[in-house]
Amino acid sequence: MNNCDTDRPIGVFDSGVGGLTVAAAIKKALPGESIVYLGDLLHLPYGSKSGKAVLDFTRAAVNFMLGRGIKLLVIACNTATSVAMHIIEKELDIPVIGVIEPGAQSACSVTENGRIGVIGTTGTIKSGAYERALKKKNASVSVFQKDTPLLVPLIEEGWIGHPVLKMVLEEYFTFFNSTSIDTMVLGCTHYPLIRRQIQEVTGSVHIVDSAETTAAAVKSLFENHRLGRSSEAGVGYEIFLTDYTDNFRSVGEKILQRKIDTVTTVTLRYSNGRVMYRENLYGELV
Amino acid sequence: MNNCDTDRPIGVFDSGVGGLTVAAAIKKALPGESIVYLGDLLHLPYGSKSGKAVLDFTRAAVNFMLGRGIKLLVIACNTATSVAMHIIEKELDIPVIGVIEPGAQSACSVTENGRIGVIGTTGTIKSGAYERALKKKNASVSVFQKDTPLLVPLIEEGWIGHPVLKMVLEEYFTFFNSTSIDTMVLGCTHYPLIRRQIQEVTGSVHIVDSAETTAAAVKSLFENHRLGRSSEAGVGYEIFLTDYTDNFRSVGEKILQRKIDTVTTVTLRYSNGRVMYRENLYGELV
Repeated sequence: MNNCDTDRPIGVFDSGVGGLTVAAAIKKALPGESIVYLGDLLHLPYGSKSGKAVLDFTRAAVNFMLGRGIKLLVIACNTATSVAMHIIEKELDIPVIGVIEPGAQSACSVTENGRIGVIGTTGTIKSGAYERALKKKNASVSVFQKDTPLLVPLIEEGWIGHPVLKMVLEEYFTFFNSTSIDTMVLGCTHYPLIRRQIQEVTGSVHIVDSAETTAAAVKSLFENHRLGRSSEAGVGYEIFLTDYTDNFRSVGEKILQRKIDTVTTVTLRYSNGRVMYRENLYGELV
Repeated sequence: MNNCDTDRPIGVFDSGVGGLTVAAAIKKALPGESIVYLGDLLHLPYGSKSGKAVLDFTRAAVNFMLGRGIKLLVIACNTATSVAMHIIEKELDIPVIGVIEPGAQSACSVTENGRIGVIGTTGTIKSGAYERALKKKNASVSVFQKDTPLLVPLIEEGWIGHPVLKMVLEEYFTFFNSTSIDTMVLGCTHYPLIRRQIQEVTGSVHIVDSAETTAAAVKSLFENHRLGRSSEAGVGYEIFLTDYTDNFRSVGEKILQRKIDTVTTVTLRYSNGRVMYRENLYGELV
């Protein structure tokens, strides 16, 4: 790529606000890069939708991102990665990084006894994508997967320090009681926000945070392929949403630890393989 | 209406599976009627989407229902009723019944001290629709509203008998501690499924179940306007969904207390005021 190409932004896509944990981790690892973020709030949560629906949504989102001239696509949504990434990456001529493979890589590196737990939405767990990715890295690991669909609603409700969260985690984690896992993959981009609470319930188990591991994978790709920006600091974040709600802003500001001043709402339509989009400036929120 | 007209089905619309509580209550009150049910699973939950998005989704759903020849539209979704009903009913030449007005009517009839509580999704509560409907019935009532967004995920997770549900209800209901309400409106079509658990926490408060009250409003409208079927039993339920997931079937069978054998998935598109839809037979599920 020439200088001009490497100055293009990184595209980060999620169904909602959770992917901002990945965007923030990338920005921390590569502070000079610009990030275009697309949150498909109109269709969230992906975890409870069919595979066909998730593939359609992802295709529409990716086509919008390509229109913004991205140099790398990060699918910062576990459900979209598990259901759609293997199809999408064949259709694009830019690199694609999902949140599953880096997490699987990291889990296989840190486990000592080869027994790995995974938690995620029902869609992610049902797809079996983590199990496949982990077994591909190391066929001898044992994988124990549990869907934990109440965690995102609890995080979005802001009950992070509430005893109900602890009770829900304890109930879900009884599933791992006799599995002897020594490593737990957080298979949802919301979960880094309750990493401490999860650690309290799991004790000494290694926690693999897919936001951090994905950011490390982006950094490594950039170093190996000279994809990093040639000029100085990027413009930060540009945020596009398919629907706007105050919840995005309040949770998003917690994740980014900064004010979100402007978002742009966009309308995506997927029809006969061609995506049309229309932009509407939502305007200043402050 | 002539005989042929009254033999047409009743259309019941919700974002998901919850509206089946309303459909079941209508079927109980009027066993001879046929019901066409549309669940917009592709976009659920409506409670966390913007008003504009909910109006667009509702218009697309209603146009599909009109194509099925319905004689009455029941909006069995509190969010869609609160956000879109006052607009939709002006656009149609068949009667429209939402879930809010019947619930408000019933609450105003049963309250003795004029102090009424309402629980619902964030979208429903933020819209203020229950407060307006209650005040319209009786300007002197005091209304206390609390959004309770964790209840639907808990019901869908099947944790109806779990101590976490009780703890969440107790936490939410501290909001009503010093309000002296004697009546509580269940402002979400999922909540009838946890009516007993709610009653345990609220004690002697009257519970108003909007599924039952909406069915009573349909029955009364049919009696007053001779809209009931002239022939014998209807064909039961025809179920259309914009996306199919197993969760619809498992929760739906609990609500209807019968097997759901067949659903049809449909694609709705709302574009320049015109809705196009395509039907795909999902096929036998059993």
